[in-house]
Amino acid sequence: MNKNDFAPVPPMGWNSYDYYDTTVTEADVKRNADYMADNLKRYGWEYVIVDIEWYAAGAGSRRNEYQYIPFSKLYMDEYSRLLPDPERFPSSKDGNGFKPLADYVHGKGLKFGIHIMRGIPRNAAHAHGRVLGTDIDASDIADPSSICRWNPDMYGVRNTDAGQAYYDSIISLYADWGVDYIKCDDICNTNMYPHDPYSGRHEIEMLAEAIEKSGRPIVLSLSPGPALIEHAWHYEKYANMWRITDDLWDQWPLLKEMFWRCELWEKHVSRGCYPDCDMLPLGVMGKGFGHEWKCNLTYDEQKTMLTLWCIFGSPLMIGSELPLLDRATLKLLTNEKVLSMQTPDAKPHQINRTDLEAVWEAVNDKTGEHFMALFNLTDSERRIEVLCSEASKKSVEQDSFKDFWTGDQIEADGEVISAVVPAHGCKVFMV
Amino acid sequence: MNKNDFAPVPPMGWNSYDYYDTTVTEADVKRNADYMADNLKRYGWEYVIVDIEWYAAGAGSRRNEYQYIPFSKLYMDEYSRLLPDPERFPSSKDGNGFKPLADYVHGKGLKFGIHIMRGIPRNAAHAHGRVLGTDIDASDIADPSSICRWNPDMYGVRNTDAGQAYYDSIISLYADWGVDYIKCDDICNTNMYPHDPYSGRHEIEMLAEAIEKSGRPIVLSLSPGPALIEHAWHYEKYANMWRITDDLWDQWPLLKEMFWRCELWEKHVSRGCYPDCDMLPLGVMGKGFGHEWKCNLTYDEQKTMLTLWCIFGSPLMIGSELPLLDRATLKLLTNEKVLSMQTPDAKPHQINRTDLEAVWEAVNDKTGEHFMALFNLTDSERRIEVLCSEASKKSVEQDSFKDFWTGDQIEADGEVISAVVPAHGCKVFMV
Amino acid sequence: MNKNDFAPVPPMGWNSYDYYDTTVTEADVKRNADYMADNLKRYGWEYVIVDIEWYAAGAGSRRNEYQYIPFSKLYMDEYSRLLPDPERFPSSKDGNGFKPLADYVHGKGLKFGIHIMRGIPRNAAHAHGRVLGTDIDASDIADPSSICRWNPDMYGVRNTDAGQAYYDSIISLYADWGVDYIKCDDICNTNMYPHDPYSGRHEIEMLAEAIEKSGRPIVLSLSPGPALIEHAWHYEKYANMWRITDDLWDQWPLLKEMFWRCELWEKHVSRGCYPDCDMLPLGVMGKGFGHEWKCNLTYDEQKTMLTLWCIFGSPLMIGSELPLLDRATLKLLTNEKVLSMQTPDAKPHQINRTDLEAVWEAVNDKTGEHFMALFNLTDSERRIEVLCSEASKKSVEQDSFKDFWTGDQIEADGEVISAVVPAHGCKVFMV
Amino acid sequence: MNKNDFAPVPPMGWNSYDYYDTTVTEADVKRNADYMADNLKRYGWEYVIVDIEWYAAGAGSRRNEYQYIPFSKLYMDEYSRLLPDPERFPSSKDGNGFKPLADYVHGKGLKFGIHIMRGIPRNAAHAHGRVLGTDIDASDIADPSSICRWNPDMYGVRNTDAGQAYYDSIISLYADWGVDYIKCDDICNTNMYPHDPYSGRHEIEMLAEAIEKSGRPIVLSLSPGPALIEHAWHYEKYANMWRITDDLWDQWPLLKEMFWRCELWEKHVSRGCYPDCDMLPLGVMGKGFGHEWKCNLTYDEQKTMLTLWCIFGSPLMIGSELPLLDRATLKLLTNEKVLSMQTPDAKPHQINRTDLEAVWEAVNDKTGEHFMALFNLTDSERRIEVLCSEASKKSVEQDSFKDFWTGDQIEADGEVISAVVPAHGCKVFMV
Repeated sequence: MNKNDFAPVPPMGWNSYDYYDTTVTEADVKRNADYMADNLKRYGWEYVIVDIEWYAAGAGSRRNEYQYIPFSKLYMDEYSRLLPDPERFPSSKDGNGFKPLADYVHGKGLKFGIHIMRGIPRNAAHAHGRVLGTDIDASDIADPSSICRWNPDMYGVRNTDAGQAYYDSIISLYADWGVDYIKCDDICNTNMYPHDPYSGRHEIEMLAEAIEKSGRPIVLSLSPGPALIEHAWHYEKYANMWRITDDLWDQWPLLKEMFWRCELWEKHVSRGCYPDCDMLPLGVMGKGFGHEWKCNLTYDEQKTMLTLWCIFGSPLMIGSELPLLDRATLKLLTNEKVLSMQTPDAKPHQINRTDLEAVWEAVNDKTGEHFMALFNLTDSERRIEVLCSEASKKSVEQDSFKDFWTGDQIEADGEVISAVVPAHGCKVFMV
Repeated sequence: MNKNDFAPVPPMGWNSYDYYDTTVTEADVKRNADYMADNLKRYGWEYVIVDIEWYAAGAGSRRNEYQYIPFSKLYMDEYSRLLPDPERFPSSKDGNGFKPLADYVHGKGLKFGIHIMRGIPRNAAHAHGRVLGTDIDASDIADPSSICRWNPDMYGVRNTDAGQAYYDSIISLYADWGVDYIKCDDICNTNMYPHDPYSGRHEIEMLAEAIEKSGRPIVLSLSPGPALIEHAWHYEKYANMWRITDDLWDQWPLLKEMFWRCELWEKHVSRGCYPDCDMLPLGVMGKGFGHEWKCNLTYDEQKTMLTLWCIFGSPLMIGSELPLLDRATLKLLTNEKVLSMQTPDAKPHQINRTDLEAVWEAVNDKTGEHFMALFNLTDSERRIEVLCSEASKKSVEQDSFKDFWTGDQIEADGEVISAVVPAHGCKVFMV
Repeated sequence: MNKNDFAPVPPMGWNSYDYYDTTVTEADVKRNADYMADNLKRYGWEYVIVDIEWYAAGAGSRRNEYQYIPFSKLYMDEYSRLLPDPERFPSSKDGNGFKPLADYVHGKGLKFGIHIMRGIPRNAAHAHGRVLGTDIDASDIADPSSICRWNPDMYGVRNTDAGQAYYDSIISLYADWGVDYIKCDDICNTNMYPHDPYSGRHEIEMLAEAIEKSGRPIVLSLSPGPALIEHAWHYEKYANMWRITDDLWDQWPLLKEMFWRCELWEKHVSRGCYPDCDMLPLGVMGKGFGHEWKCNLTYDEQKTMLTLWCIFGSPLMIGSELPLLDRATLKLLTNEKVLSMQTPDAKPHQINRTDLEAVWEAVNDKTGEHFMALFNLTDSERRIEVLCSEASKKSVEQDSFKDFWTGDQIEADGEVISAVVPAHGCKVFMV
Repeated sequence: MNKNDFAPVPPMGWNSYDYYDTTVTEADVKRNADYMADNLKRYGWEYVIVDIEWYAAGAGSRRNEYQYIPFSKLYMDEYSRLLPDPERFPSSKDGNGFKPLADYVHGKGLKFGIHIMRGIPRNAAHAHGRVLGTDIDASDIADPSSICRWNPDMYGVRNTDAGQAYYDSIISLYADWGVDYIKCDDICNTNMYPHDPYSGRHEIEMLAEAIEKSGRPIVLSLSPGPALIEHAWHYEKYANMWRITDDLWDQWPLLKEMFWRCELWEKHVSRGCYPDCDMLPLGVMGKGFGHEWKCNLTYDEQKTMLTLWCIFGSPLMIGSELPLLDRATLKLLTNEKVLSMQTPDAKPHQINRTDLEAVWEAVNDKTGEHFMALFNLTDSERRIEVLCSEASKKSVEQDSFKDFWTGDQIEADGEVISAVVPAHGCKVFMV
C-alpha cells in the first residue's frame, strides 16, 4: 500500500466547518451529501467531511463565551477513543459510531471523512482511561505539556510504543466505520510552540503507520497552516495534504496573500502530495458562528480563487452549505475546463509576480495541455502581458485563446499574449 | 496593612527542595526546624519552607521517569483547594491541613512557609470541582491553555471575579493554617510562553489582593527566575521577593553569573522588596533526587556566595539538610559580620566588574556602616585594588581593614584599598 | 574628578534640532542664546546645544532626497577631527573651531554643547588621514563593518590604544574650544545591529576616559534611545544622561508611552545620572525640515509633559526656536514650582499606573518636600484618587492642596487625595 | 536568450579560493587551467574561476590582521569598475583586464569565471567616481547603509536606473573580457542584516538584466549561503546557482549537515537552476591562508561527498590546487559512473533519512536510469536496507547491483535492497 495512491488527484468535496462550526448534525451531513450526489458528483466532487468536535456534548451551546467549551463532556468508548455525540448523530448509538453515516455517504457513491485533533482526550488522561492493546493507561500516553493553543480537548501523545498503540486503536476504529479521509488538526503547525512548531512530527509518523496497518486507504490531511516549508519533505513522505495557510475566509487580502503561498509551494505538488489552500468560502456560511452571511468576495475574486486553486493543484473543499448554493456559485464550481487543470500531472509554475499582477502556467506532460492564467492584483482593470519566452512554451501559433470563464478572446501575436483583466480578476486559457 | 512591612529584612531560612525534592515529610520538617531553633535562630534564621508537591500522593515514587508524576492523585478539599498528603504529613488529617505543623514551627519561635504552583488543579477543573464563595465551578476558572512547562499539576486561573474568589479561598485557608510565607512557582517567569513570559501578571495581583484580604502578613515570594527586569516595578508593587536566576546549584559558572544578575537588580533592593539569588546549595543535598552529595563549591567559593548574597541583600534560604551541616559550613552560615550586611538599609552597589574581578560596596545611611567586598573571578590568586574615588566614600583614613571571614589585613593608603584574593574567593570588610 | 559632579542636577537648555534639523548657523545659535540669557536663565535654563552635522558642507541642501547627504564634504583638520562648516559658522575659520561661539555663550553666563556621531569620519578612513598622537592612520582605527543605520558620516572606532588616542584627540580639541556638553549619537542604542544594540560599549568607555583626561567637566549625553535597561549600570558608570526613548515629537501616543518608560527607569535617577525623556517639542519647530509648525500637543498635554519630565527628574531641553516662544508656552517653561521637582534629591516613584491613569510622587529627603502628580491618560475628564497608604506619606493632615499649574484645589480627607483631571492632563502639588 | 540555457548541466570546475584565499595570480590560474585541460576536461570539468579580491593591491599581505584589508587600494577604471591587480595579473595591464587570461583559458577549451562582490566600490563612492552611461556619480548610486558583514570593499547599489546602468557597465566589461561565469558574493544571503537577509534582491534582478543585455551567456552564481528557501522561486527565476550552505570545509559535521540541506532543496534542481553544495575541499588547500593542509576527510567521507553532490545534482567546483592532486583523489574526481548522475534530467529524491542513515535515488526519465545511494551517517559499519516500495521503482528483478566506487555487490531480493556500508561511507549503484 502506497499512501500516494490514496489520492491520485487532489481531493474535492465539502466540509462542514464554514457553515456549521462545531454544530453539524447527521441530518445536515446527509442533506449536503444528497446535494453533492445530485449536483456536484459528476464534476468530481466526492468527499463529505465532518469537521471539528463531532464528539463534544453541547458543542456550540456557549458560543458567546467559547468556540470550544473547556472541560466539557466528550463521548468516548472504554478505550479512550472519541465517539460521535449521540444527540447530534443518532445513528451512532449502540456502538455504531460513524458507520451508519459513512454507509449512507458511500451509498451515494461518495466518500466520508472526519476531523480529529492531534492527541488523546485530556479527560481520558485525567480519568486514567484504558488503551486498547496495552496494559498501561491514557495517563502514561498523554504528554501533559503538549497542548493545543486554541482547543482544550486533547493532550499530545508521547513517542512510545504505547502511543503508537493508541493511534493504531483509533485508526482501526475509523477504518471499521468506513472513514476515507482524516483531517488531523493541531499537527501541521503546532502554533502553541513558536520555537517548536513541528512538535507533532512523531505523531504524523504514527498516524501514517496506523493507516498503513489498518489496510484501508485513508487520505491524511494535516492542519492548521501555515505549513512549514522546511519540513516539506516530511509532509510529502507521510501525508497527502497539508494546509499552507491559516484559516482562509472570504476576504481579498487573504486571497491575495495566497499567491505567494502558492509560489512557495509550487514545487511540492505531486501525485498523492498536495499543498492545501484551504476551504473555499463561497456561498452561504456562518450559521454555527451565530450569523449567516453570503460570501464577501466579488464574482471576479471568486473566479480568481478557483482559478488559482485549480492551476496550482490544491484540494478543493467547499465550506458553505451546499443546498443554499445559488446558480452563479454553482456555475463556478462546475466549470469543467477550470477543474480539468486540477491534476498533479499538470505541473504548476508561477511565471511572474509583482504587486500588480501574477501569471501562472501548468503543463501536463501526459496530455500536452498547457494552461495559463493572468491575474490582476490591483483594484482597477489592467492589461496584462506575458512573453512566451518566459513560459515553458516558447512561442504560440494561434492569434487568440478563449477564457475558460467567459469565452472572451485573449490576444496573442506569437511572442506576446495579453488581455485586459478586471480588478482582482483573471483570465485563464489553454495555449 | 502594607506588604513591605511583612518582611522588613530579607527573609532567612531553610527550604526543603535541594535535599528532599518532592519527598519531604512532616518528620523531616520538624527535624530541620528543631535544628534551626537550636543552632541558627539566634543569627536571624527563622523561615521553615515546605517546597513543591506536598499535596501529591506518591510524590517522588517514579523518580526515574518523572520529577512530577503526571495525572497523579492530588489531595484536595471540597473546594478544589490542595491539602497536604496525609501519608507524609499525618497531622494534616481530619481537615487540619498544615495547621499542626505550622503550630509546631511557631512553637519553636520560627516562621512557616509553603510552596504553591500558580493556578488551580487540573484535576479539579476536569472534575468540575466547587469553588468556595462562588456558584460556578473550577472548570470556569481554569484556563485550559495556561499551563506550566515543567509541572503538570495546574491550570492558570482566569482574570475574573471568580478567579479572584479562588485565590481568596486558598489564601484564607493558608492564613487559617498559620502560613507566614508563600513561594508561588511558575509565575515570576512563565517560561512555557517565550513570547509572553509574564502571562501570570494578573495572578500576582490576585495573590496580593487575597493576602491583603486575609489580614495575615504573608510574605509573597515568586519563582522561577530569571525575573524580567522590565517588570521590576510590578514585582515591587505586589511581591516581597522574586527569583533573579533559574535554579541555582553548586557550580562555579552559575555563581559567577550571579554577579551580572546582581548588577542588573542592585537598584531594586528595598524594605519589603528583594531580588532573590535563590537557595544556598551548601552542605548535603540530593536525597530526594536519588543520590546525596556534598556541596561541590570550594570553601572560597562558598564564602563568595554568602558575601555576594549578603552585600547585595538577597534573601537567604539554606537548601541542604540542616542536621547534616558540618562545622565549617555552619561557621559560614553564622558569621555575624557577614550577615549584618544583609539589610535593605545597606544600599548595594557594584563599583566595578570585569571578567577578572568584581568590587561591591553597601552603604547603610542609618548606621553609617560602609561595607566593601573584593571578588576574584579568576582561577588563580590575584591582587585586587579599588580606588576610593570610585566608592561612595572618597577616601579612607585607616591604613588597613579586617576581612570578615579570616581576620586578614586588607591594605589601604588613603586613596587605594587592595588585597590579595584567592581564586574564586573574596575579601569583605568595613571601611 | 568625578563625572557625577559635572551635572549635579539634570541639565536644562536648548537644542537646535527640532527647529533647524541639520541647518543651524552661528547667528541662530547666538539668537537663541541671547533669548535664553534674557528670559530663561534665571529659571535654571543654561545649556545651548548645537545639534547634528555642524561639520557638513551643504547640510540640508538636498532635504527632499536625504536628511544626511551621503559622501558629502565634511570639514576636518589634519588629524581627522571634524570642524564647523565655516559657511555656517564664520567665526570658526582660521582654526578657531567653536571657541568663539563657546566664548560668546559663556559670556552670557550660559554653557555650550555640541552633538557628535560615534566614530571617525568615513572620509578620513578612506583618505588615510592622520591621527594625533599616533603613527598609524584613520584606516587602522576605523572599523569598516561598524556603521550607523541612519547617518552615513562615520565608522565606529576599534577598541585599541590608537582608537583611544583618536577619542582623546577630539575631546581635547572640544575642551580647548570650551565645550561643556557632548551629545554623542549612534551609541546609546546602535540600532543598525538588532542582535548587538550595545556594540558601541567600548566607545562609551573611551569617551569617558578621554573626558577624564581632558580635565574639563564635560557632560556626556548618549543617544539615540531607547536605552537598554540591561545596561543601566554601565550607562550610570560612564555617562551623565542617556535617552530612554527614540525621537520624541509632539504626539500624544508618544507622550503616553513615556509613562512606562519612566516606570522602567525610575530607580536610575541619581546625582550625575539621568535617564533622558528627550527634547521638549513645545513652541515652533520644523524650519530645517522644510515646514514650520506649532506644537501639536494641547495645553493640558504640554503640562503633562513638563510635569512628568520634572517629577521623574529628566533633563529638559527645549527643541523649538526660543525667540518664537509665545507667552503661554513661556509660562509653562518658567513655572518655578514645577521646575523645583526636577532634582535628583527628589526620588521619583510611580505609585500606580493603568491604561486610564498614572500617579507619581517624588520625595526629597533633604528638604522634606513630597510632590505628587495625578495624570489622566484617557480622552475625557476623570476623577483620580490616590490612597495615602500607597504613597510614601501614610496620611495627610491638610484637607486640600494647590495645583502648581492652576492653583486649583485638590481635595483630601486624611486617607484619600482626589481631583478631577482634564483629558490627557494632570494635577501636581505638594503634600 | 534564456538564462537556463547558459548551464544546461550543473557547472563543474575549479575555484581558486580554498588554496589561494585572496592571493591567486595569473600564473597560478594558468597552471590549474593547464592541469584541468590535460587531466580533467574529458570528464566534464571545464570552469576556471578566479575567486575573491583579484582587484585588491596587496591582498593577503596582512593575513595575521585581516582576511580583507580595509581601506586598501582597489584597482579601478575611470568608470568605477574594478580591474585586476596588475602585479598579480600582469597581462591585465594597459586596459586589457582579464581578456588575455580568459583567452588563454578559452584556448584550452575551458571556460573562465570571476568572483565579484555585490555593489560598487566604497572608494569610488567616496571619490565621487564616474559611472558609464550616466551623468551622476558613484556617490549617488552607492547606498551607504548597505554593506557586507565580512568584507569592506563595497557599498550596495540603489534600486534606480543609475544603479542598473552601473551593473550594465560592469557586466558589459566582463562580457568584453570573455567572462563565462560570475560568482557574486554577499547577495544570496546578506547576513549583515539578520532581519532582512535578502536585501540584495533588486541587485540580483539587476545582474540578470545586465547579463541579458550583454548578449553573452554568463552563468550567474550566488553566494554566500545558506540560501533562503522562501526565496527559491526568485533564485530560480534570475540565477543559475545559489549556495545552500555557508562555507563548506573538510569536516564531517559540515558534510553530515549537507544531507538535510539537500533534503530541503531537492525539488529545486532543474535545467539551469542548481542549489549549490559549495566547493569540494579535497586535495591540498590553504596556502593563501598561511598553512597548507591535506583534506581532513577520510576516503569514505570523500566518496560520500562526491556521491551526494552528484546524485543531488549540485555544481562541482574543486577547491584545491589541481597540480597537487594525488592519484587517489584524482580517481575520485574522474569516476564516470558517479559523475553521470549529476544531470538535472536525473531527478533527485531522498527516500529516507534518520540520524543513522540516508537513502537517495535519482531517476532520469529520459534515459530510464535509476540511481540509488545508501549513506551510513554513523561512526561504525552498518547494514542499510531500503524497501523497493519506498523508491520510485516498485521492485527489482536483479539479485545484486554493483557499487560505482568499489565494484562491490549490493544484495537485493525483489523487495529489499541492502548492503553493509562503512562508517561515514556510502554505496551507490544503478537499479
